[in-house]
Amino acid sequence: MSFTAAILTLYPEMFPGPLGLSLAGRALGEGRWRLDPVQIRDFAKDRHRSVDDTPAGGGAGMVMRADILAAALDATTARHPDLPVLAMSPRGAPLRQARVRALAAGPGAILICGRFEGMDERLFEARAIEQVSLGDFILSGGEMAALTLLDACIRLLPGVMGAASSGDEESFESGLLEYPHYTRPVEWEGRTIPEVLRSGDHARIAAWRHAEAERITRLRRPDLWERQRGAPVRSPSGARQKDEG
Amino acid sequence: MSFTAAILTLYPEMFPGPLGLSLAGRALGEGRWRLDPVQIRDFAKDRHRSVDDTPAGGGAGMVMRADILAAALDATTARHPDLPVLAMSPRGAPLRQARVRALAAGPGAILICGRFEGMDERLFEARAIEQVSLGDFILSGGEMAALTLLDACIRLLPGVMGAASSGDEESFESGLLEYPHYTRPVEWEGRTIPEVLRSGDHARIAAWRHAEAERITRLRRPDLWERQRGAPVRSPSGARQKDEG
Repeated sequence: MSFTAAILTLYPEMFPGPLGLSLAGRALGEGRWRLDPVQIRDFAKDRHRSVDDTPAGGGAGMVMRADILAAALDATTARHPDLPVLAMSPRGAPLRQARVRALAAGPGAILICGRFEGMDERLFEARAIEQVSLGDFILSGGEMAALTLLDACIRLLPGVMGAASSGDEESFESGLLEYPHYTRPVEWEGRTIPEVLRSGDHARIAAWRHAEAERITRLRRPDLWERQRGAPVRSPSGARQKDEG
Repeated sequence: MSFTAAILTLYPEMFPGPLGLSLAGRALGEGRWRLDPVQIRDFAKDRHRSVDDTPAGGGAGMVMRADILAAALDATTARHPDLPVLAMSPRGAPLRQARVRALAAGPGAILICGRFEGMDERLFEARAIEQVSLGDFILSGGEMAALTLLDACIRLLPGVMGAASSGDEESFESGLLEYPHYTRPVEWEGRTIPEVLRSGDHARIAAWRHAEAERITRLRRPDLWERQRGAPVRSPSGARQKDEG
């Protein structure tokens, strides 16, 4: 069974989008992953096919209805009973590489993409749904977040990156940002590649790279550095820890 | 002048992609933003049009050459001298809504999308480039990150969201995650919309929503809660503060 991405969305035509090209597109063509887009509107109950209504208590915008989302989700989980269900939402747990790696090692995911002001909260009470956030910013909907999450997963699927590419030394895989890269030309605009990288001394190169990764992480991401060092960092939430554990 | 997104990429055909549909697509058609995709390969110097080379010091994968990236960038900044230059990279400062809002209020951005193992570090020493990260995960390239950043900016451009949608009450705008939403039906699977939201008492509703936003933020994102409360939080890095200030 290849990795399956079932997407609940009002814009199924956004998929595969950029994932139809390059690495992910080739992998899609090779059957390393597959896409099952689900039009939420197909589960509407009126002739206008409406999926949203005004927010209870007033306010701007529209809220996606729990009953319609649940109907779309139940039909999808019936087809894919083994897939975890995620909803892309800025109120979710921030996505991290460990979660990406766990998802990529599994059978795939059902991804619910919200639009408008959000989804009726009762959906999350009534169904087992992991809410995932890309970061502390707001998108026009969950679709771009789903595409991004899938891009992160697909590159890790067997056979996608190829032997040439290394997953292990990249940022976050070791809990550190990655060391700086250099390539030819040796001199450019008066700047040369650091001498150590031209020394041929593999032990010195490895030590330099590790020291640089540490230096850059401490400088740019003290939060990541403290997490890496095992310093007491406040837990992000019970749900998150369970998800990532 | 409309908001301009100049994209340096090896995959210009990925743009506008999902941004050609829905809100962003309509805004593109209306000229509220425009796209200037730049094929980095057009600035290669050999007949193979190569843009990358093996990493100095050894290791897997390929590194994008500083000289070719700089040539592509210099040609683009000459056409768009007023645009800030951002590179999408997991080694950058994590994107936050405040940066999105500042970008959306400006003339646009030049976005450099890396591929392979990364870009030659000398590019960042030799040119003024803000490195921005979507989050602590690895993508197959910068393209999906650029699309995501643009999606976040475009929805904030004048006339894009329309009067019906509120930007102010959303997650992060107030430093808190957003309160839960509810809509009809009033009862669904035995779960009812909270009574307060059906009370018509606007002051009580506002107080409930604020309390819920605080409760959810403390529970799910203690890091965000502490930042909001003005507790001493370690600064993310000098560069970051300047960018966001």
